[in-house]
Amino acid sequence: MQKQLTVKSGARSEMIDITGMVRSVIRDSRVEEGICYVFVPHTTAAVTINENADPDVPRDIGMAMDKAIPWQDHYSHREGNAAAHVKASLMGASEMVFIENGNPVLGTWQSIFFCEFDGPRTRKILVKVVKSRQD
Amino acid sequence: MQKQLTVKSGARSEMIDITGMVRSVIRDSRVEEGICYVFVPHTTAAVTINENADPDVPRDIGMAMDKAIPWQDHYSHREGNAAAHVKASLMGASEMVFIENGNPVLGTWQSIFFCEFDGPRTRKILVKVVKSRQD
Amino acid sequence: MQKQLTVKSGARSEMIDITGMVRSVIRDSRVEEGICYVFVPHTTAAVTINENADPDVPRDIGMAMDKAIPWQDHYSHREGNAAAHVKASLMGASEMVFIENGNPVLGTWQSIFFCEFDGPRTRKILVKVVKSRQD
Repeated sequence: MQKQLTVKSGARSEMIDITGMVRSVIRDSRVEEGICYVFVPHTTAAVTINENADPDVPRDIGMAMDKAIPWQDHYSHREGNAAAHVKASLMGASEMVFIENGNPVLGTWQSIFFCEFDGPRTRKILVKVVKSRQD
Repeated sequence: MQKQLTVKSGARSEMIDITGMVRSVIRDSRVEEGICYVFVPHTTAAVTINENADPDVPRDIGMAMDKAIPWQDHYSHREGNAAAHVKASLMGASEMVFIENGNPVLGTWQSIFFCEFDGPRTRKILVKVVKSRQD
Repeated sequence: MQKQLTVKSGARSEMIDITGMVRSVIRDSRVEEGICYVFVPHTTAAVTINENADPDVPRDIGMAMDKAIPWQDHYSHREGNAAAHVKASLMGASEMVFIENGNPVLGTWQSIFFCEFDGPRTRKILVKVVKSRQD
């Protein structure tokens, strides 16, 4: 089962918690044991897993990424968003979580984040739920 | 089905578009719905997904990686390629894409790149296509 | 089959080779052909694949990460370990390796490392082995 989600970012850099949306896709799939894959079909956005109990954590991640990969840095790409492309590759286009008893298996502090690096934009996220073989 | 591909890099750092090769493996597998996994069995190379419409994008990614992880930086590893190892871990040894109707599901601007960080060399890439359960 | 492993880190930053532990889980699963997924349910730790033949390589990776993402850098997160969260997202919470003839398919120099970024702590690692369909 593959499902397409939509998120709207409101800033150039933004971490959007999509754990609830992913949890809903898993519930709708009725898969009890398996793996859920999240894929971002964009080249200036990504997906990552980190803490959201303190909203300062995603904020700090964005800030540290901006320092490590500065927005202006003599890039060749004329569109002006080269840094966003670099960050997308560093964070990665996909994540996966195990499914047990119909729920994603996440650590106490783990949330799944869509990472916007060149917003604001309307973005797509693809989610696929695969059942584990019982035989 | 697992298949081994070979690529030859021509520079120390190089992003090589392997989307066509991956697409061929998927077509040969005759899998219509599933997941395609790409794995790089090296420690100074990686795989990532990004834009290739403008060749400046992969070039900028290489440049930004060189700035964030400088080639010379008081490393201990005597082989002299420690930076390449760091970049390999940051980019990651694997990627996965969904398969629908026999084709990889990629965004408009997404291509799959083999990332050479210590070339020129002849390198291996492993690709595995897994069919989704229909039941 | 999902299994939980435990590792104890002895320093703030540490790369712990878990290849042997992962290999044991695969052997115990009796799966001959498939994929093994490794997932770290923490937000200040990660998993990566790199070289361990020279122990200077994992040491250099830790050092380069510390330089790219400094421990002190005007972060907002009051717990004081924001850099560890950033590094966890950069390295990633999961890795996967193919299984052939009951063994993980790794390149000559590849080992699987648990990455501690905020130790010393006792940590969990989840491993799932999925058999490939033969039909």
